[in-house]
Amino acid sequence: MDQKVFIFDTTLRDGEQVPGCKLNTKEKLELALKLEALGVDIIEAGFPISSPGDFESVTQISKHIKNATVCGLSRAVQKDIEVAGASLKYAARPRIHTGIGTSDYHIKAKFNATREEILQRAVQAVTWAKNFVDDVEFYAEDAGRTDNEYLAQVIEAVIRAGATVVNIPDTTGYCLPHQYGEKIAFLKNNVPNIDKAIISCHCHNDLGLATANSIAGAIAGARQIECTINGLGERAGNTSLEEVVMVLKQHKHLGLYTDINTPMLNPISREVSDVMRVPVQVNKAIVGANAFSHSSGIHQDGFLKDSLTYEIINPEEVGAEGSRIVLTARSGRSALAHRFHKLGYEFNRNDIDVLYESFLQVADRKKEIEEEDLHQLAKAYKPELAIA
Amino acid sequence: MDQKVFIFDTTLRDGEQVPGCKLNTKEKLELALKLEALGVDIIEAGFPISSPGDFESVTQISKHIKNATVCGLSRAVQKDIEVAGASLKYAARPRIHTGIGTSDYHIKAKFNATREEILQRAVQAVTWAKNFVDDVEFYAEDAGRTDNEYLAQVIEAVIRAGATVVNIPDTTGYCLPHQYGEKIAFLKNNVPNIDKAIISCHCHNDLGLATANSIAGAIAGARQIECTINGLGERAGNTSLEEVVMVLKQHKHLGLYTDINTPMLNPISREVSDVMRVPVQVNKAIVGANAFSHSSGIHQDGFLKDSLTYEIINPEEVGAEGSRIVLTARSGRSALAHRFHKLGYEFNRNDIDVLYESFLQVADRKKEIEEEDLHQLAKAYKPELAIA
Repeated sequence: MDQKVFIFDTTLRDGEQVPGCKLNTKEKLELALKLEALGVDIIEAGFPISSPGDFESVTQISKHIKNATVCGLSRAVQKDIEVAGASLKYAARPRIHTGIGTSDYHIKAKFNATREEILQRAVQAVTWAKNFVDDVEFYAEDAGRTDNEYLAQVIEAVIRAGATVVNIPDTTGYCLPHQYGEKIAFLKNNVPNIDKAIISCHCHNDLGLATANSIAGAIAGARQIECTINGLGERAGNTSLEEVVMVLKQHKHLGLYTDINTPMLNPISREVSDVMRVPVQVNKAIVGANAFSHSSGIHQDGFLKDSLTYEIINPEEVGAEGSRIVLTARSGRSALAHRFHKLGYEFNRNDIDVLYESFLQVADRKKEIEEEDLHQLAKAYKPELAIA
Repeated sequence: MDQKVFIFDTTLRDGEQVPGCKLNTKEKLELALKLEALGVDIIEAGFPISSPGDFESVTQISKHIKNATVCGLSRAVQKDIEVAGASLKYAARPRIHTGIGTSDYHIKAKFNATREEILQRAVQAVTWAKNFVDDVEFYAEDAGRTDNEYLAQVIEAVIRAGATVVNIPDTTGYCLPHQYGEKIAFLKNNVPNIDKAIISCHCHNDLGLATANSIAGAIAGARQIECTINGLGERAGNTSLEEVVMVLKQHKHLGLYTDINTPMLNPISREVSDVMRVPVQVNKAIVGANAFSHSSGIHQDGFLKDSLTYEIINPEEVGAEGSRIVLTARSGRSALAHRFHKLGYEFNRNDIDVLYESFLQVADRKKEIEEEDLHQLAKAYKPELAIA
């Protein structure tokens, strides 16, 4: 039977950290309600100790979200965890997300501590969090660069202390997909109590591998993916929600699914882009303006014969406006005939051969051919046929 | 000994197909010269038969590029190949890139042909191209969805006909990394004459996996990667040159290298973005404006203790302006102290504790704290210390 992968959205926490993306409480609450409607399982609403404004945002989101789990971030610090607990007081399904760096880089440079001390602080943090909520997620920061044997010890200890979810972040976006998958598989095979918790992937995109790493993690046994709309997040960003969801949907043979309502993907992408004022590049997978545009002649010809030749996703499935055939100097005769036909002209093959030559002359001078250009071409060719 | 992966840049062909990205001959030539300086091995300069303007562009690029191979695209059509050959007449190192769709989707829907007929047309195309140039690259379009046994037959036949490079495109961006890697490995193991050609990866990004797929291909034995600056290309784009180059550079244990001059990556990214008028999103890996920005308090604190805690690439290595510490309501005391220090203030820990409270009040209202805000905070706190 297919297994569910929980979608943990951190647009409001990791995404909101992006320079210029900060939202006020009203904006955060509105976005949280939309994320719930999209079908995300967990909403990471903020980092409550970071500022009074963020505490208020997490509190308001806790009050209004009924179906999704609401999660607040904290360091492995008692005061952080108390404040996170307070901010989640009204949540129907509260979760505290706490943790500490476990790589030697973090243990030495950041904490000036030993592995044993960090393990104790990890267990202590989970124990504190359990005083406030049942659902405690532990993050082993920089797990991507953490020694696997030590990581397994930490994970076993925090699960024993009550962690329900264990997050294995590739904080610096360093891992290759097979390495990240092997790390998750190592934990599955070497942590005796691993079946008492859900393994979570939290991958950054510094080398452009966040989506591939998250999927490799899920294939190896992780059942939660942390991600953001449009891949927003620290530095080069986090894993794109829209990408991991569609990879799992397109590759059904993996036997994994999510509860995301995919036709909402493009609308929510635009909303996040608007409210956070971060444009989405046109060639972004799934939600970019050109994600379903075909412009070369070879592609357009094939696409017009059968969309499956060049399109693996039906645009409607992800709420995108239909596939777009853009006319440029790289377009071929079939695309030109198609566009003339859509405008109401009935040209035969010979007509198109003649029109194509004049089309190319115009197209070589312009970036893109508009409707008006086509009417002009038709008029110059056969004035009696002109319809506009 | 480490092995070289050839970088085949198709910004001027696959990238230039993007709606709105079309360049004139002067612009294409200028960019080609910059790509050569960047150190790319092959420049795909255009699709010569597509328009007279593009024919002229490939001709001019052929005349002026001395070190890189100049490549022209064609379908498996005699006229296309003749025109490509003519456009490359002046090139120091010319290559014709020809090919045909090999997946059943393409064979049936696009060509209404049989597998045997397509194989013959593939061999014929390579034979025609060999009349013009020694260096012939064959593409098996939609190889990502092509049956491996049949693909191996086609590849063996075109190598026998003289193909020097065999391109295995995941045209629709469908493959998972392990699937694409297995496909390349299958060809390495099942095509008897495979050592007479270089295997090339050409991966599209429809599911956000182009970089991971290309790397999986290289790990499995491919020694050429086709890519574009900023990942431009049809639909959701092609593989990002800057990402695959930096993955190989960061993961030296793979034993693979490229000849790309990495400090030019950010400057050329901006130039392509400007001339093609396609903005790069801020959270783009390697070349996005935020790729080296740290904004959360946890990250900033660690980064200031040791940049390796949160940064795997030195920004200078890719020509980015130094790492940026951005102050927002998610920043912590250490980042605030750091910025005050850089502005010339000498505050102690107690000062920072007090200033941090007023900082948060301002930061909760603003997206980002500017220098002027910091001077105001300092002045309000201790007027006698104000330095601006």
